[in-house]
Amino acid sequence: MQSQSQVKSVDTGSELVVRMALTAWNTENDRINKLIDKLSDGDWHSQIASGKNSGIYLLGHLIAVNDNLLPLFGLGAKLYPNLEKVFLSSPDSSGLEKPSLAELKTCWTEVNAALNGYFVEMTADEWFGKHNAVSADDFVKEPHRNKLNVLMNRTVHQSYHRGQLVLLEKK
Amino acid sequence: MQSQSQVKSVDTGSELVVRMALTAWNTENDRINKLIDKLSDGDWHSQIASGKNSGIYLLGHLIAVNDNLLPLFGLGAKLYPNLEKVFLSSPDSSGLEKPSLAELKTCWTEVNAALNGYFVEMTADEWFGKHNAVSADDFVKEPHRNKLNVLMNRTVHQSYHRGQLVLLEKK
Repeated sequence: MQSQSQVKSVDTGSELVVRMALTAWNTENDRINKLIDKLSDGDWHSQIASGKNSGIYLLGHLIAVNDNLLPLFGLGAKLYPNLEKVFLSSPDSSGLEKPSLAELKTCWTEVNAALNGYFVEMTADEWFGKHNAVSADDFVKEPHRNKLNVLMNRTVHQSYHRGQLVLLEKK
Repeated sequence: MQSQSQVKSVDTGSELVVRMALTAWNTENDRINKLIDKLSDGDWHSQIASGKNSGIYLLGHLIAVNDNLLPLFGLGAKLYPNLEKVFLSSPDSSGLEKPSLAELKTCWTEVNAALNGYFVEMTADEWFGKHNAVSADDFVKEPHRNKLNVLMNRTVHQSYHRGQLVLLEKK
């Protein structure tokens, strides 16, 4: 009886931490959604600071990073593979043609809807399983290289760029 | 035998997630340390973007937020309670006197050293225990309000401001 309750209590810990990480992830996404509601088209085309990245580049960058979670977690192919070259492997100044702001806003909504559709179904064991950028052998030695860790790091990364995007807001 | 290995495997999960969160926390702190090595005194006194917060204000803000973890986690009193008024409850424009940049750099190093001295000793059970801003009754209903969740959220918060601080760097 005691042993069963031990297992249950620790099990809850593992599910609890997944909920904590998902809440943080959803909170960050919601905050970007609120910025999307608030900023004008002109704001998005401005630079976050003189000579730095534009808002539209950072939005595309965040979409491409989130889109990459689909293959990384074995959930499917990227929805927008064309965004990688413009927003991940090239700087804002590349001169490569960017999708319109309206298109990017749709991509942002759709990629997060796709991800969250999978995320709500994933078990704690799946979250603690390896992602596709680590081999099975390496994962035995480095069990922190799991999907949950990637989600936590992506949340931190998104917040980094949100700290920049809020600068687009006019006082 | 099977039951024992189940317990072990889930136990590892709980310690593993603490290591994941601490690694993310330390990584963020190291990145701020690298910025401190890189930015000039003039950079720190500049605004991150025209009309926005200064670097020195954001550094003081991050110190005050980290310092607050000491009482919040029941680890001791704040080291620098005087920073709260200037960097947490007042905006950059308050006109309140700020400590010098040299003093702030020392505070940054010392508050993180104090925190990390405690963090390396804390068990997974302690991390999953309640912090001091939640009552015991509420914690039963809201078990996510634990110390680990605060650490994860502080890591996200620090990254938000690091995304702003990197803008101080001259090209």
